Amino acid sequence: MLHRRPFLPVEILADEQIDSIHLASLEVLRDVGVEVLHPEARQLLVAAGCRFDGAERIYFDPDAVEAAVATAPSVFTLHAPNPAHDVQIGDDSVVFTSVASAPNVIGNGHARRSGNRADFQNLVRLTQALNAIQIHAGYPVEPSDIHASVRHLHATHDILTLSDKAPNVYSLGAQRNDDCLEMVRIARGVSDEQLDEQPSVTTVINTNSPLRIDHPMAEGLVRYARRGQVCIVTPFTLAGAMAPISISGALVQQNAEALAGITIAQLARPGAPVVYGGFTSNVDMRSGAPAFGTPEFMQAALVGGQLARRYGLPYRSSNVCAANVLDAQAGYESVFSLWGAVMGGANIVFHGAGWMEGGLHASFEKMVLDADLISMVGRFLQPLSTEAADLAVETIREVGPGGHFFGSAQTQAGFRTAFFKPMVSDWSNHESWIEAGSPTALDHAERLVDELLDGYEAPVLDQTVRDQLEDFVAHRVAEGGVFTDF
Amino acid sequence: MLHRRPFLPVEILADEQIDSIHLASLEVLRDVGVEVLHPEARQLLVAAGCRFDGAERIYFDPDAVEAAVATAPSVFTLHAPNPAHDVQIGDDSVVFTSVASAPNVIGNGHARRSGNRADFQNLVRLTQALNAIQIHAGYPVEPSDIHASVRHLHATHDILTLSDKAPNVYSLGAQRNDDCLEMVRIARGVSDEQLDEQPSVTTVINTNSPLRIDHPMAEGLVRYARRGQVCIVTPFTLAGAMAPISISGALVQQNAEALAGITIAQLARPGAPVVYGGFTSNVDMRSGAPAFGTPEFMQAALVGGQLARRYGLPYRSSNVCAANVLDAQAGYESVFSLWGAVMGGANIVFHGAGWMEGGLHASFEKMVLDADLISMVGRFLQPLSTEAADLAVETIREVGPGGHFFGSAQTQAGFRTAFFKPMVSDWSNHESWIEAGSPTALDHAERLVDELLDGYEAPVLDQTVRDQLEDFVAHRVAEGGVFTDF
Repeated sequence: MLHRRPFLPVEILADEQIDSIHLASLEVLRDVGVEVLHPEARQLLVAAGCRFDGAERIYFDPDAVEAAVATAPSVFTLHAPNPAHDVQIGDDSVVFTSVASAPNVIGNGHARRSGNRADFQNLVRLTQALNAIQIHAGYPVEPSDIHASVRHLHATHDILTLSDKAPNVYSLGAQRNDDCLEMVRIARGVSDEQLDEQPSVTTVINTNSPLRIDHPMAEGLVRYARRGQVCIVTPFTLAGAMAPISISGALVQQNAEALAGITIAQLARPGAPVVYGGFTSNVDMRSGAPAFGTPEFMQAALVGGQLARRYGLPYRSSNVCAANVLDAQAGYESVFSLWGAVMGGANIVFHGAGWMEGGLHASFEKMVLDADLISMVGRFLQPLSTEAADLAVETIREVGPGGHFFGSAQTQAGFRTAFFKPMVSDWSNHESWIEAGSPTALDHAERLVDELLDGYEAPVLDQTVRDQLEDFVAHRVAEGGVFTDF
Repeated sequence: MLHRRPFLPVEILADEQIDSIHLASLEVLRDVGVEVLHPEARQLLVAAGCRFDGAERIYFDPDAVEAAVATAPSVFTLHAPNPAHDVQIGDDSVVFTSVASAPNVIGNGHARRSGNRADFQNLVRLTQALNAIQIHAGYPVEPSDIHASVRHLHATHDILTLSDKAPNVYSLGAQRNDDCLEMVRIARGVSDEQLDEQPSVTTVINTNSPLRIDHPMAEGLVRYARRGQVCIVTPFTLAGAMAPISISGALVQQNAEALAGITIAQLARPGAPVVYGGFTSNVDMRSGAPAFGTPEFMQAALVGGQLARRYGLPYRSSNVCAANVLDAQAGYESVFSLWGAVMGGANIVFHGAGWMEGGLHASFEKMVLDADLISMVGRFLQPLSTEAADLAVETIREVGPGGHFFGSAQTQAGFRTAFFKPMVSDWSNHESWIEAGSPTALDHAERLVDELLDGYEAPVLDQTVRDQLEDFVAHRVAEGGVFTDF
């Protein structure tokens, strides 16, 4: 189901403060510039009035930036292979994704290990099985046992056959981009022309902070935008490391880099769907390690939303934590980041389910626990009815002072659906809990992972589509996939 | 330090919806009425135009309720024995308390056990040691090894000698109320007249839901209000048990009961400091067990704030969870309830640190972990500077594309204080974390409890005050304390 935020996002900065971040970003873009390591992207920028230093740096013309950003849509539909999983991106909708891009994985009965295809597939199955997760965010864990030259083929094949929710693809060069788009086109059963008009995949464009957009990322901006696909431009601006130590300074840089990327996408195709991504957090200044779900992360998440709305753009934030284990820290850092994301007006919450250890491992159990957290947030976002029957004056009259509501007609009629029923939370009394073996949330999540994978049902996939996908993969694998020099 | 919310609270209901809850509450008060088991309180209500049925029930006159509630102050200062711990209650300030009233305790090296004085004293010491906790909320755990006839004397003595933050007292009859106020007067070194003009203690008035105010609670409303002390009127309206199963219905009842209590306090002394307390949550309909930190709890917390502001009253919410153990559930339920409380505009967050298992046990380790959560919320509430130096355009220029901010002058100048440094959160990389023995948040909290209790320093207390307190306790104990028939 689509969650809609029934209240206004929270504004922690005054409009003048947002303006000052905006103006400082334009100043950075104009005077410091951004290295854009992609000739075609540079040509687009120069044609729009930006200045090129002849090497790699582009000095952005503020008017050109504002004009380009203004052509982006504020809301669009992301089409899934199964139309039942189409989602609106933008406005008051809030969409949650699976974890993406972890190199390691924990859970499903095993200790921490490098990502492999079997775990990758199982995490995709969980993503499909959990209603709370609405779209994919990439590879939930890197299937590093598949050779890099053909990994995108097999991995995208797995996502499109094990799940019918909208996929995410990486931007790792023109050939891979084209391969993935072709597979998504096959899975959706549409023509090239239809695909070009219907956003059907998301891709995350991470700037190489500070102030650099590398070749594959710029390539993705140009190519996916031209094909009408969704670029989620997300600078990874860690305050104190790749960005200034002041949160507002890191936000200036985030904003400059996001605007630079969005400008390229809009110049490649005015009106292409883009998302303003915020991923500003802070480092632990004792160790240099990135921290997540911190107060600074929350502030940045809220301000990121204010900035995105200033430009009329959909906004992406994240559900993140730095915990090594599924303990209280994992719980509180995740909910703090959901707090920042949801109250900040995020339209897509990336890494919605399964992200641990600052992204260094995906967790099966965290994916289930996060699905519960997301569902709780979804329930929280449901409008509260104040219709006469729900105000329950008659019920209160019927029960009267000193009575009990268990037996009231209202309770008997509504008790099955009245409240959200979590999967993980243990509300047993102490005696029952001891009797059950004192399970923690992690124990419950482990059991649920088993149950969900046992009960997993593959989506119905047309045999023709399945054959076409397999033929395509076989053909491209036979061709050797994509040249890699590593 | 006093936390101030630098943004408006979130409104999840429209003004008309708040009006409809308000009007439904007045209808309940007028037509169903409330049992008020205290003759003097009933006399005050009858004198104000309410109707008495001759037995126990009062049918409230809506105009009388509105007129009485309007005399309550919207903001006041709560004076602590140490003026450095005075806090403002109301407006945009947010104050966090310790846990209160748990019958059992866990931690500090021991498994779950009944509350006793030694644990009580150690939790009071932790409350004093942790800067995040600003005021007491009652007995953090019931010191059940002290006889009930003299428990209030010894327990209040302990709080006033082990801590100099503002105490909370229970309302358990006239004699206990008087004893506690006298001890607080001694601790603050003020006259009776001064005490009557300076709020110096809080007391929680729980209605006996549905729609009953028992004798000790009504007694507390009348007596503490007359002495200018703070009544936090908090109906415990569990939807589906002591209140309607619909959240808006439970809120109608919460509001009716809160207004009834506040009306009594204001009739006893117009202008007496009161707080509108919200404690609406839901039960697990499978077991009847109360649940906390749920989506329904969050919605109720936000609407409770809207209602309190409608009446211009300070608002109390809570940091609660139902977890049996300090696991991910304890983390996420607590942060969900903090989310509801803080975004709902709570001025006092009760059970701010140490509440577990739906209030059935206080936890030493949770108290430390919650203190960290509270501090994170406090940091989140700090206004974000957008002064030119913090926008950091010059720093971004200095570092340039592809550079690193570790070495910048801004980072070197600011790294010590730039970010919040949690006590509990473990941001180690995986290798260091394994080397450290794979500690969980619970392990870290256990260590911190030891460190904090070892490092505890008693507040400086004037010897005369100390002697007077001890004389008073000795004298009242010799008199036999308070008659108990249990």
